[in-house]
Amino acid sequence: MEPLYEGKAKRLYTTDDPNVLRMEYKDEATAFNAEKKAEFENKGRLNTAITLAMYRMLEAKGVETHLLESIDDTNLLVKNVDILMVEVIVRNVAAGSFSKRLGVKEGTPFNQPIVEFSYKSDELGDPLINDDYAREMGLATPEECAELKSKALIINDVMIEFFQHAGLKLVDFKVEFGRTKDADAKIVLADEISPDTCRLWDIETGKKMDKDRFRQDLGGVMEAYEEVLKRVEATVK
Amino acid sequence: MEPLYEGKAKRLYTTDDPNVLRMEYKDEATAFNAEKKAEFENKGRLNTAITLAMYRMLEAKGVETHLLESIDDTNLLVKNVDILMVEVIVRNVAAGSFSKRLGVKEGTPFNQPIVEFSYKSDELGDPLINDDYAREMGLATPEECAELKSKALIINDVMIEFFQHAGLKLVDFKVEFGRTKDADAKIVLADEISPDTCRLWDIETGKKMDKDRFRQDLGGVMEAYEEVLKRVEATVK
Ligand SMILES: Nc1ncnc2c1ncn2[C@@H]1O[C@H](COP(=O)(O)OP(=O)(O)OP(=O)(O)O)[C@@H](O)[C@H]1O
Ligand SMILES: Nc1ncnc2c1ncn2[C@@H]1O[C@H](COP(=O)(O)OP(=O)(O)OP(=O)(O)O)[C@@H](O)[C@H]1O
Ligand SMILES: [Mg+2]
Ligand SMILES: [Mg+2]
Repeated sequence: MEPLYEGKAKRLYTTDDPNVLRMEYKDEATAFNAEKKAEFENKGRLNTAITLAMYRMLEAKGVETHLLESIDDTNLLVKNVDILMVEVIVRNVAAGSFSKRLGVKEGTPFNQPIVEFSYKSDELGDPLINDDYAREMGLATPEECAELKSKALIINDVMIEFFQHAGLKLVDFKVEFGRTKDADAKIVLADEISPDTCRLWDIETGKKMDKDRFRQDLGGVMEAYEEVLKRVEATVK
Repeated sequence: MEPLYEGKAKRLYTTDDPNVLRMEYKDEATAFNAEKKAEFENKGRLNTAITLAMYRMLEAKGVETHLLESIDDTNLLVKNVDILMVEVIVRNVAAGSFSKRLGVKEGTPFNQPIVEFSYKSDELGDPLINDDYAREMGLATPEECAELKSKALIINDVMIEFFQHAGLKLVDFKVEFGRTKDADAKIVLADEISPDTCRLWDIETGKKMDKDRFRQDLGGVMEAYEEVLKRVEATVK
């Protein structure tokens, strides 16, 4: 069966229900806008399980997500939503592109979280934008931008606390949102939440437990994801 | 006499009054963060006269600026202000870095103006930032960001209309603001307004009448600046 869409990390398949998609997590890893690629055995399984646990945890805290149900180790059923073409990034500590672009040392904590938008375009390298850009590019209205920011900050609060119980510092993360196709279209959290999309540092040792291990050739990539899953599962209990 | 500060386009000198600086406009032109350089005879004189006329026009419309008085062809007396380290850019039509970063054809008009901030750092290439970045970098508080935006939009409205009378389309511009050192510190418009800092297209022909002639090796750079000055002076009358 042909996927409806094949991305860098996941495949989307239609189902009998037009409102429902099957999302399959692949073992492929990419970084730097797919300039760097590798395959990691078990990555699909680990990210499926981490996303599933995080989404259930968030739903329990009142955050609406696209999640419907788990099918197997590497497949989730999700609502078929219209993805907003803005990636929403929340930062608690300077790292990654922020540190590089602003010349701020990685690890510098922020007083309050930073929320930023980037235009979801692989071709353009997901450039940073602001609300006015989003409005003029037809990506999101000013009201939607405000809604995305407030939802992202709530998700951040919930995840900071959750990961703290798991002994992990939530440095930053990227989320995507989609509009449900119901009559009363709502904006819900979509895509994934995993060490591919979050920076997580071990609180005790400072060890990086996320995709930066792959980006920076630190080794032990899947061992770190496995450890994140273990702690997430112990924490949701 | 040694300048207090020598920039790419201007020199600042102290005066007998610590609250007053002399700003001298140089003939030097730079582009692409000073990777491209050239000297243009008369540029200092033209930009001094254009800035002077624009600032007087803006003051008459109620916009507070750092301008005190004109001294000679290439020197203005200005208030010594604490420059905010954010550059404020207003865009009415896609061009320059917007077109490049967002993949939008130059010349595409916006429905409403876009206001954006960049971090004033030559070393980092003046990267685009948002309000949260400005807050965490200590560049401007959220309230100051709102004030900069509203001031920039008023300046845009006034300048669009003014340049229209001069037969020029205001595509975009960059301004800087500073805090006056008075007890009741106020945010006022500072730096310059010239074809170095505005994109201006002839309304009839579409001809570029600004620094893009230098950036893009279109020739006739000073002829265009001279024409802008002529039209500005005819319009202020
Ligand atoms: N509930 C959903 N309904 C429809 N599309 C979704 C949903 N959740 C996520 N998506 C989209 O599915 C794709 C997931 O694939 P993947 O993450 O591999 O893409 P990608 O390579 O990162 O590319 P992209 O730049 O499109 O995100 C993304 O385009 C994502 O926006
Ligand atoms: N009223 C003022 N008081 C103090 N400084 C000012 C005032 N107006 C402008 N400036 C500053 O004076 C300098 C003008 O020089 P110039 O425009 O040549 O600088 P530049 O090469 O563009 O470098 P920079 O990146 O510092 O702007 C700028 O740094 C500007 O911010
Ligand atoms: Mg993706
Ligand atoms: Mg300057």
